[in-house]
Amino acid sequence: MSGSLSVVGLGPGPAYWLTPEADAVLKGATDLVGYAPYVDRLPQRPGQARHASDNRVELDRAHAALDLAQAGRHVAVVSGGDPGVFAMAAAVFEAVEARPVHERDLPIQVVPGISAMLAAAARLGAPLGHDFCALSLSDNLKPWTAIERRLRAAADGDFVMAFYNPVSKARPDRLREALALLGTLKASDTVVAFARAIGRPTESLSVTTLAAAVDQPADMSTLVIVGSSETRIVARPAGTPWVLTPRSYRAGA
Amino acid sequence: MSGSLSVVGLGPGPAYWLTPEADAVLKGATDLVGYAPYVDRLPQRPGQARHASDNRVELDRAHAALDLAQAGRHVAVVSGGDPGVFAMAAAVFEAVEARPVHERDLPIQVVPGISAMLAAAARLGAPLGHDFCALSLSDNLKPWTAIERRLRAAADGDFVMAFYNPVSKARPDRLREALALLGTLKASDTVVAFARAIGRPTESLSVTTLAAAVDQPADMSTLVIVGSSETRIVARPAGTPWVLTPRSYRAGA
Repeated sequence: MSGSLSVVGLGPGPAYWLTPEADAVLKGATDLVGYAPYVDRLPQRPGQARHASDNRVELDRAHAALDLAQAGRHVAVVSGGDPGVFAMAAAVFEAVEARPVHERDLPIQVVPGISAMLAAAARLGAPLGHDFCALSLSDNLKPWTAIERRLRAAADGDFVMAFYNPVSKARPDRLREALALLGTLKASDTVVAFARAIGRPTESLSVTTLAAAVDQPADMSTLVIVGSSETRIVARPAGTPWVLTPRSYRAGA
Repeated sequence: MSGSLSVVGLGPGPAYWLTPEADAVLKGATDLVGYAPYVDRLPQRPGQARHASDNRVELDRAHAALDLAQAGRHVAVVSGGDPGVFAMAAAVFEAVEARPVHERDLPIQVVPGISAMLAAAARLGAPLGHDFCALSLSDNLKPWTAIERRLRAAADGDFVMAFYNPVSKARPDRLREALALLGTLKASDTVVAFARAIGRPTESLSVTTLAAAVDQPADMSTLVIVGSSETRIVARPAGTPWVLTPRSYRAGA
């Protein structure tokens, strides 16, 4: 009896961003494993078991999924966005690594998805049109000093930055601290965009400057993009302006 | 007569990675505009016009697409991967910016896709499991000094790096130069992965070290990932090992 494990990216939420590969794997799975809000997104299917768990137990969840697969089940571990970007793929391979090599011959696949930064960028125009970084501002698993070091490096390189996990209940001022640090390193009129709950009914966008962004609220569903020195706004006749990071780069050469 | 323009991400190639949104937009378009190899991927549909163009004419192509949309056509500008990541979205908004504001009320949308780095990461396991940068090594539109500056910054920040456009006919040694520079800044046993033509029949993966990577061939279809100090290999009983960048970060704190 040979089981399998798939780590599946659900994308930001709507069905129109779920790939056919992800859809097929979800339909064929005997067991769905994941953080409860992601499992709850999926339809109930006869004969399919659902194992919803709390946040911050990623490694336990990954081990439970591996155990199920090793017992012959076809397990889909579900993640929002892309499973490889601040999501379940890393936890699954940490769990794989903790097992002896001879137990690693289970079929494991990662099914990519539309990551939050790609969905946010799509709504904003082309903010990631040139070199960029993706950073998690969560200091659950890394020291804040490491985050500061990376913010400084990203500013030195004049990268566009996409921030995941910009705030949490435990650390509501994390984003404010990051933006304040960048305020000492980058021009105050640097373009900053907040993209909230993209693809969901409450979706919203706002575009502002680094100086003004410090006072802007954000939550766990917000993806924040900080522009490079070349990122600029393209006005529209109405509504939120487009954000453009052009393909060419002249600054800092 | 009201036209529209969609900038559509086709993903890395296979239909199983094309989102339902992209599929619907492609089916509803009156005109397909894009670099010939991307247009050639799509089925011929009765009544749908195809405008295939050469590489390196992105801005001309974007203007032509806007002209068609302004004449009332429903235009899909097609890009490989995600249109916002080193692809057509930036060129389209550069073209929008070049027009007066009152001409910008055309409905324009960007349809995200699976970018090459997400597909490559999925095949490799979880190489992007922590903070990372995406850089184009093409110096068509930016000076090589800017690329060097960003490589240094990315090394300073100990980011995982994903390289797009690692080589070209005009500059076959670009990747070698980038890796040689990183060799002076990072440990020689840093994990480096080459992911070629992911999703296509000729797909291949290789995992090596920074020291050995300098001599490894790459082409325009290769996505190169350079690990952080914490990126490591997880051996499998057979085949290419998994690559894991763990969720926690302890180095350099």
